[in-house]
Amino acid sequence: MSKFPTIALDAMGGDIGPDVVLPAAVEIRKKYPELNLILVGQEDRLQADLASLGVKPDERLTIHHASQVVDMDESASSALRGKKDSSMRVALNLVKQGDADACVSAGNTGALMATGRFVLKMLPGIDRPAIISALPSMTGHSHMLDLGANVDCTSEQLFQFAVMGSVLSSVVDNVERPRIGLLNIGEEEIKGNERVKLAAQLISASKLNYVGFVEGDDIYKGGAADVIVCDGFIGNVSLKTSEGLARMVGHFLKQEFNRNILTRLMALVSLPVLKAFKRRIDARRYNGASLLGLRGIVIKSHGGADILAFGNAIEIAIKEIHQALPERINAELEGMMSTEQPA
Amino acid sequence: MSKFPTIALDAMGGDIGPDVVLPAAVEIRKKYPELNLILVGQEDRLQADLASLGVKPDERLTIHHASQVVDMDESASSALRGKKDSSMRVALNLVKQGDADACVSAGNTGALMATGRFVLKMLPGIDRPAIISALPSMTGHSHMLDLGANVDCTSEQLFQFAVMGSVLSSVVDNVERPRIGLLNIGEEEIKGNERVKLAAQLISASKLNYVGFVEGDDIYKGGAADVIVCDGFIGNVSLKTSEGLARMVGHFLKQEFNRNILTRLMALVSLPVLKAFKRRIDARRYNGASLLGLRGIVIKSHGGADILAFGNAIEIAIKEIHQALPERINAELEGMMSTEQPA
Repeated sequence: MSKFPTIALDAMGGDIGPDVVLPAAVEIRKKYPELNLILVGQEDRLQADLASLGVKPDERLTIHHASQVVDMDESASSALRGKKDSSMRVALNLVKQGDADACVSAGNTGALMATGRFVLKMLPGIDRPAIISALPSMTGHSHMLDLGANVDCTSEQLFQFAVMGSVLSSVVDNVERPRIGLLNIGEEEIKGNERVKLAAQLISASKLNYVGFVEGDDIYKGGAADVIVCDGFIGNVSLKTSEGLARMVGHFLKQEFNRNILTRLMALVSLPVLKAFKRRIDARRYNGASLLGLRGIVIKSHGGADILAFGNAIEIAIKEIHQALPERINAELEGMMSTEQPA
Repeated sequence: MSKFPTIALDAMGGDIGPDVVLPAAVEIRKKYPELNLILVGQEDRLQADLASLGVKPDERLTIHHASQVVDMDESASSALRGKKDSSMRVALNLVKQGDADACVSAGNTGALMATGRFVLKMLPGIDRPAIISALPSMTGHSHMLDLGANVDCTSEQLFQFAVMGSVLSSVVDNVERPRIGLLNIGEEEIKGNERVKLAAQLISASKLNYVGFVEGDDIYKGGAADVIVCDGFIGNVSLKTSEGLARMVGHFLKQEFNRNILTRLMALVSLPVLKAFKRRIDARRYNGASLLGLRGIVIKSHGGADILAFGNAIEIAIKEIHQALPERINAELEGMMSTEQPA
């Protein structure tokens, strides 16, 4: 590892590709001048694109050639078998080989998970990566996992998520004993399913700071937990439901302010507030989900991320590198498994 | 059955009880003068409360005594065993006996489901009630079920939800062949779980107008489906996540407009738009979830519903009575079971 963090960027990944990744790389260097970035992708294209941005590669901003690109709708198995020289795979290889400390990709999630798992391997005791992201709340933010990597999770997996999420939260937010909540539903007659109930037992018997069940409305209310643990199916639906609702609310607000000349004048008058409000609920500030459980740092950016959003994903990678997240998760897992969860 | 619909209102149910139910009853009579309402609950209390509203009981607004009240946090089994004279149970009995055409309650969901099932019984072929509600979208609205009555649903249950939701949508919205979508997650490697995949096969082999998988962001985007089918755990989390997010967004907007004198002036100027916007996302207009699959019409109002919201739940009951919803679901189920789904 180099003295300053080195991050491999999948320059071809995402709906937009180099037109977002390259400007984001150029921007983030202004904030972190000591950062080393490796742009992975088709060399000619990347060189030309960099030139058009008026930037030349240097020792802190290098191009690493990869001839292929994983399509956004390509199956994970096709990417794994047929795209051995994809920008995604080569970026992950750089992490594997120790040439980079982390990889950031806006590419296809399924392919990134499968390839990440194949190239980097899992930490001992973890079956599959879990996707975690910060979500805003009225009182700050929380971290929620799994957001879609695992469906039909076992109670043991939910427990593993709790351990990994706890380490991430303590590392990223500098919280000593992150409060762990387990997502459940509140109907009395049918409170939760068996897996969730068993997971609650596992987590509360561990050293984790378990605060009990939380419900869907606690996610954005805040204050209930620092880490919210759930099955990947539920996490994914919850996250996408939120995206859709936020978009609808924004759409309605815009529609009402666009109704006629008078309302448009009102919008003009209120512009500073509307801008501040937009900033508050700007999803780009929360872009960047970590694939936890791998022997290396992999950050998944939203496929449609813009320059600001992709930059945010790079910043998450920087934080996790500084805190040696995978090593700390591994140490924590070992402690958990040996003391509280004997095999 | 009387010539005009008769609705039994659980006057004691909900976080607020008679102080919401009675004014809502008085209000709704102005809109539907031919409606018959039975207020079920503690007679003395209800009589006094009506009097304080300046209203006397008449032949269209009667009080039916029930000595007990189901607590909002009481377990379903305790309500079933120990509260045989609860306002909720007595209101359901009135439906059972044919003295009312529907029951509306803002009481404890678990208790309402369990008692509704015990008193009214299920339609043949349906195991448990499913909770369905309309949700707004950019293009109109859709109906989503199950919202929390059933966890760990089988594929067959998801299929039953599709049938019941289809009938409800066609009846309530006058849609000829409602489009049925199955809620799923989109990650390529792990698309859905086995139950969802099997349910997709069952629904697409039936006469239903199946449009395939939808994702969380389709709920509020609209246009994808008229009915969205999912497991009750997922539906409940998705709904509550939405409630929480909507509250957070409203909170942020208010906060930004309250920041200082200048922004408060801007709010004043924009008040008409802000009010119109608030109306657009007003959850009260969507209050009232139907418990489908029972041999009778039962509408669950949000526990914290106010007068407007509770009135909306009553209006849903009126619609379902006019359309004889349970009978039509039953007929549709029989058709489905005999032609497309031989036992």
